[in-house]
Amino acid sequence: MDPQKALVIFSGGQDSTTCLGWAKNRYPQVEALSIDYGQKHRVELTQAAKIARRLGVAHHVLEAEFFGRMVKSALTHPGDVGGAHQDHPGLPASFVPNRNAFFLTLAHAWAQTAGAGVLVMGVSQTDYSGYPDCREEFITAMGRALNLGAEVDIVMEAPLLHLTKAQTFALAQKEGVLAEVLELSHTCYNGVETMNPWGRGCGDCPACGLRRKGWEEYTAAL
Amino acid sequence: MDPQKALVIFSGGQDSTTCLGWAKNRYPQVEALSIDYGQKHRVELTQAAKIARRLGVAHHVLEAEFFGRMVKSALTHPGDVGGAHQDHPGLPASFVPNRNAFFLTLAHAWAQTAGAGVLVMGVSQTDYSGYPDCREEFITAMGRALNLGAEVDIVMEAPLLHLTKAQTFALAQKEGVLAEVLELSHTCYNGVETMNPWGRGCGDCPACGLRRKGWEEYTAAL
Repeated sequence: MDPQKALVIFSGGQDSTTCLGWAKNRYPQVEALSIDYGQKHRVELTQAAKIARRLGVAHHVLEAEFFGRMVKSALTHPGDVGGAHQDHPGLPASFVPNRNAFFLTLAHAWAQTAGAGVLVMGVSQTDYSGYPDCREEFITAMGRALNLGAEVDIVMEAPLLHLTKAQTFALAQKEGVLAEVLELSHTCYNGVETMNPWGRGCGDCPACGLRRKGWEEYTAAL
Repeated sequence: MDPQKALVIFSGGQDSTTCLGWAKNRYPQVEALSIDYGQKHRVELTQAAKIARRLGVAHHVLEAEFFGRMVKSALTHPGDVGGAHQDHPGLPASFVPNRNAFFLTLAHAWAQTAGAGVLVMGVSQTDYSGYPDCREEFITAMGRALNLGAEVDIVMEAPLLHLTKAQTFALAQKEGVLAEVLELSHTCYNGVETMNPWGRGCGDCPACGLRRKGWEEYTAAL
């Protein structure tokens, strides 16, 4: 594995676009990996391809739609993304069980194939959606397990882990990808492509709510 | 999750067939999950379906062939299953990077969908093929990470973990599935279906070698 080569788990949203900029400014070789897990808002994959092209990064897409069919989530099946999860009463309807474990397992395998010594992921446990698989404890445990299982030592980087959404906007600006975040990145659970000052989206779903609030805090502090 | 419902990760080989018998004798509800990961010896999936039918267990197959294409392994790409792995010099050519992480992540997600509180896997670190993802340390770390990521408490059972292959034959006999192991289960990496006293297979590949040796030890001690 090459410690100068980073693979970014890239959904095409605000967070992973910011991570792509962050990685580009730190590693000589950067590639992006998107996973089609049967998300209803698959427009994010179209946007991911556009962003990768604009930033000149090789972009791979894994076709794993079966995953969305086998789990229960309002992101992969009909239903309101607002309320509580049908199986996990303490978690939001948009929680996709084992999604980040699935992403990390696939990206960690891809990194071995590609010889990438670094894996970058845009999770945050600060202004997050209440998903337990966005917490540092999970990312650390998963990274350790995956390295044990393959006898490798791939470094996990989660540069947004302790940032608020407002700080993530500031980081995007610092890393030179704020334009990509605002014009191209897609976070909206409803797949709505309306342009707003804070980016594309419906403005009503939990993902848009977090993003808009972060933008207001970011711009208020400028 | 129902602690009386077990999901068995079921390849159709000797070990997971033994686990299916073991689980059937311990849990009121048992289901089996097979994963088509693009293995060359996919005849194991046909055998898995036959064994599940004979044992009266609901059997599900996930179509995830993309996984075999993205990793390097002599089990999913042309090449001799004998020598060393092309990327991992200390491991055998048949090692499939992150395969057990992939299986566990999917089965753990499926268990949440199915409400199964127990996950059973036929890994062994005793008479094993030198795969780091068959060791107890990995299984424990992975189980902990997956439970953390989904805020659940699914119990991982690996009844063969400390058994030799000879002891696994004895366990199959004790659990009442030795006939299924010998007549139907498929372990051979080369996908050869020749019948032998110790079961189906070519007799030459590493998987057949382990199985034959175990059978000889088991029968010598009878």
